Amino acid sequence: MSEASFDAGHEKKDALVKYTDQDVLDYHSKNFPGNGKIYIGSKTSLATTLDLTLAYSPGVAVACKVIEKEEEKVYDQCAVGNTVGIISNCTRVLGLGDIGPRAGLPVMEGKAILFKGFGFIDAFPIVLNEKDPDKIIDHCVAIAKSFGGINLEDIRKPDCFKIEEEVQKRVDIPVWHDDQWGTALVTVAGIINALKVAGKKFKDARITMTGSGASGIAISRMLLMAGIQGKNLILNDRNGAVYEGRPKGMDFAKEKIAKNTNPDHLEGDLATIVKKFTPDIMIGASNPKMFTANMIKDMNGPPIIFAIANPVPEIWPEDAFDAGAIICATGRSDYKNQINNVLGFPGVFRGALDVRAKTVNKEMKVAAANSLADSVPEDQLSKDMIIPSPLNHKVYLEEAVAVAEAAMRTEIHRINRTADWIREHFEKLRNFYMDNENPIIEKRKNY
Amino acid sequence: MSEASFDAGHEKKDALVKYTDQDVLDYHSKNFPGNGKIYIGSKTSLATTLDLTLAYSPGVAVACKVIEKEEEKVYDQCAVGNTVGIISNCTRVLGLGDIGPRAGLPVMEGKAILFKGFGFIDAFPIVLNEKDPDKIIDHCVAIAKSFGGINLEDIRKPDCFKIEEEVQKRVDIPVWHDDQWGTALVTVAGIINALKVAGKKFKDARITMTGSGASGIAISRMLLMAGIQGKNLILNDRNGAVYEGRPKGMDFAKEKIAKNTNPDHLEGDLATIVKKFTPDIMIGASNPKMFTANMIKDMNGPPIIFAIANPVPEIWPEDAFDAGAIICATGRSDYKNQINNVLGFPGVFRGALDVRAKTVNKEMKVAAANSLADSVPEDQLSKDMIIPSPLNHKVYLEEAVAVAEAAMRTEIHRINRTADWIREHFEKLRNFYMDNENPIIEKRKNY
Repeated sequence: MSEASFDAGHEKKDALVKYTDQDVLDYHSKNFPGNGKIYIGSKTSLATTLDLTLAYSPGVAVACKVIEKEEEKVYDQCAVGNTVGIISNCTRVLGLGDIGPRAGLPVMEGKAILFKGFGFIDAFPIVLNEKDPDKIIDHCVAIAKSFGGINLEDIRKPDCFKIEEEVQKRVDIPVWHDDQWGTALVTVAGIINALKVAGKKFKDARITMTGSGASGIAISRMLLMAGIQGKNLILNDRNGAVYEGRPKGMDFAKEKIAKNTNPDHLEGDLATIVKKFTPDIMIGASNPKMFTANMIKDMNGPPIIFAIANPVPEIWPEDAFDAGAIICATGRSDYKNQINNVLGFPGVFRGALDVRAKTVNKEMKVAAANSLADSVPEDQLSKDMIIPSPLNHKVYLEEAVAVAEAAMRTEIHRINRTADWIREHFEKLRNFYMDNENPIIEKRKNY
Repeated sequence: MSEASFDAGHEKKDALVKYTDQDVLDYHSKNFPGNGKIYIGSKTSLATTLDLTLAYSPGVAVACKVIEKEEEKVYDQCAVGNTVGIISNCTRVLGLGDIGPRAGLPVMEGKAILFKGFGFIDAFPIVLNEKDPDKIIDHCVAIAKSFGGINLEDIRKPDCFKIEEEVQKRVDIPVWHDDQWGTALVTVAGIINALKVAGKKFKDARITMTGSGASGIAISRMLLMAGIQGKNLILNDRNGAVYEGRPKGMDFAKEKIAKNTNPDHLEGDLATIVKKFTPDIMIGASNPKMFTANMIKDMNGPPIIFAIANPVPEIWPEDAFDAGAIICATGRSDYKNQINNVLGFPGVFRGALDVRAKTVNKEMKVAAANSLADSVPEDQLSKDMIIPSPLNHKVYLEEAVAVAEAAMRTEIHRINRTADWIREHFEKLRNFYMDNENPIIEKRKNY
C-alpha cells in the first residue's frame, strides 16, 4: 500500500485552525440520529425469525455455554476483543478541571471517535459519578468484563496513579491511563527524533523534566524505560529539583522517580538547575511561561525544547528560537511538532487487542515510542518534523505491529499473530471503515 | 406509511425454526470486524485538522462548558439521549442460571441489537463481575450518567427487585428490569386481547398467577396497575396460594402482592385453588407441566391459558386445547401467540428517550400494554392472534407514542414532544437504519 493511500482524509492544515463556539455546538448537535458523536450499531441481521432465534433466545444459549466452559471463547463470540471502555470521573478534563461526568462526556465521546477513526476500535465512554479512588477502582474492576481493554481518562492526580495500578492488578485486560502514557509516548518518540536531528545520542542525553502532574511523572518514567540514564534526568516541580528524601512536597510517585534520578541531589529552582546541569533537552508539562530565554542560553546546545503546557506553552516557539533553540515542540496544532496524544492510544490498543493482551507492560510502551519515532521517514526528518502526522493511518498500523510483537515477546498475549496477520487485518479494518462506515457519516446530514 | 412498509424484514416464519449449534457459533463469530454482534461507530467526520479540533481538544471544551452550566444540555451535545445501558451480573441468564459475566455477554449483545433493530436505540452491554446487590446498586448509580436509560437484565431474584427500586430512586433516568416488566407488559397486552376474543370484560376477569419469580411478581403487579381487581387475582407458588400473613415461603415482594390480592385468604395448591376460585385465566411463569387438563376443566370457561415457562411450558398447547382451552399463549416462537418480550423494551425506551424521561412509571407501563394490545387490528384479532408480530416496526412506534404521552401526562419528562414529532422522528430513524446501517450488515460478509 502506498503512503498516500493511508491518508485519513482530504486535507492537512498546519495553519491555525479557526472556529467559533457555534461551530463546536453544531458539530455535536447536528448529527443524526440523536446528537453526539457516537452510536452503537448491529453487525448482524434481524430480518427473520431465524435471526431472532440465533441472536437471542433460545439460540444464543449455545454461545453462552461455549464461553461458560472456556472463558476466552468470549473473544470469538462477542465484540469485546475489539472494544475498549473509556472510563473517566471527569475530575481533570482538558484545562477545565473537575466539571462532572455529564460535562466531561463530550471529551470521552471525542476520544471514542478517535479510537474508531485511527485504530478502528469500538470504544464506549463510561463516566463515573464518583470521586473516591477506592470506589472508582471497584467500579472499574466490576465492569471490566464488558471490555477487551480499559482507557482511563481525565482523572485527577494523585488518584490516577493508584487507580491505574490497582485496576491493572485486578483485571486481565490492558489498562492504560492516557493522560500519563499517551503524552509520555508521543513525547519520548519526539525526543528520540529530536536527538537524531541534533546529532546527539539518546543514551547520553541530559534532560530536565518540569512538572510533576500525570504526564510529567509518566514522561519521566518512560524516558527511563526507553534508556535515558537516571543520572541524566532531573524532575522539577514548584518546589524545585526533585531528589530522594527531599523534605518538601513529595508524594509516592515523585519518591519513585527520585530513587532513580538526580543522584547528586542537585537542589534549586529550574534556572539554577539548568545552570548546574546544562541539559540537552528541557521538557515542560507544567505551566505557561515557565521557561525563559536565559535558561535556553544556559543549556548544552543546540537546545531542544518540549513546551507542552496547553493552551499556553512554557515558552512560545518564536521566543525559544530567538534564544537559540533548534527544536520546539508544543501541545498546539498551530505549530510544528505537536505532541498530540492521538498518536498513541489507537495504535497501542490496536496492537494489544490484536493479540488479546492481558496488560500493557513497559516493553509495549517503549516499542510504541520507537515505532512512532520511526514513522517519520529518514528523508523527512527535520527540526520541523520530528513527529508524524496524526492523519496518516500507517503510523497506527506500525505502532500496532510493534506493540503486538512486544506483547508476544513478553508473553502477556492470549493469541499469536504474525506481523502479516496484523497488517492484513488492519488493512481490512481500514478499508471497511473508509468504504462503508465513513460514507454514512456524510449521509447523516440528509436525515 | 402503509402497514407493509413497516415490515422489518423479508420473511415471517411461524413454523418451527431449525438451526444447529454451529449456526449459532457462526452467527456470532463470522462477522467483521472483530466478532460479536455490536460495534461502536462515529457520527462525525475526522478527515481534517478542523474535525480533530472540534471533536476533541481544544474545541470540544465549548460543548463541555455548555453542559457544565446546564446539565440537561448533555442531551443536545452527546449521544446519551439515544443510549441505553444494558446492565447485568448474569446470575440468571435464560435457562442457564448463574453463568458469569463473560458467558452472559452474548445475551446482552443480543439485547443490544434488538434495541437497535426495533427501537433504533444505541444500547451498550455492561456485565458486572459482582453478586452483592448493594454493590451492584452502587455500580449502576456510578455509571448512570453515561446513559439516557438503564435496562437491567438477567439478575437473580430477589436481588433484582431491590436493585431496580434503589437504582431508580438514585438516578434521574428511566430504569427498567426487563425480566420483570418486559414479560409482564407483553403478557398483560395478550390478556387484554384474549379477554376480547373470549367476550369477557377485563375488569371482571379472575386470574391465577402461578410462579413468584421476577416475571410472576411483575405480571401480578402490572395486572393490578392495568385494572384487574385485587379480589380477582391469586398468586401461587410452590407453597400454594399466596395470602397476607401466610406463614411459609413469603418475602418482601410476595407480601406486597398479598396485601392487595386473595382477600379471602384461600389456601391450597393450584388444583385446589382453581376448583374454589374458578379463574377465567391461568397464567404460569413457573415450571414445565404445572398445569393439568383437569385444572383447565375446572376453570370458568372458555379457558384462557398463558403457559410461558421456557422452553417447556406449563402445559403444551395441544394438551390445553384438548382440555377445552380456547387460547394458549407460550414463550415459544414455534407456537401461535408467543409472549416475546422484544415487543416491550424497544418501544418503551423509544418513548421514554424521546421525551427524555426521568423514570418509567406505572402509567407508562400500562400505556405500553394497552398500545401493544391495540396493535392487533380488530379484523385480525383471533384466538391465534392476540399478540402482534415482533417483526412489525409499527408496533414499536405506537408503543413509543403511548409511553411518551403517558410520561408527559405524568410530568416526568424533560422535553415536550407531539405525537407527530415522535412519528416523524421514528420514521427518520427507521429509514436511516433500513437504508444505511442495515445494508452494511450484509457487506461485512465480504471483508
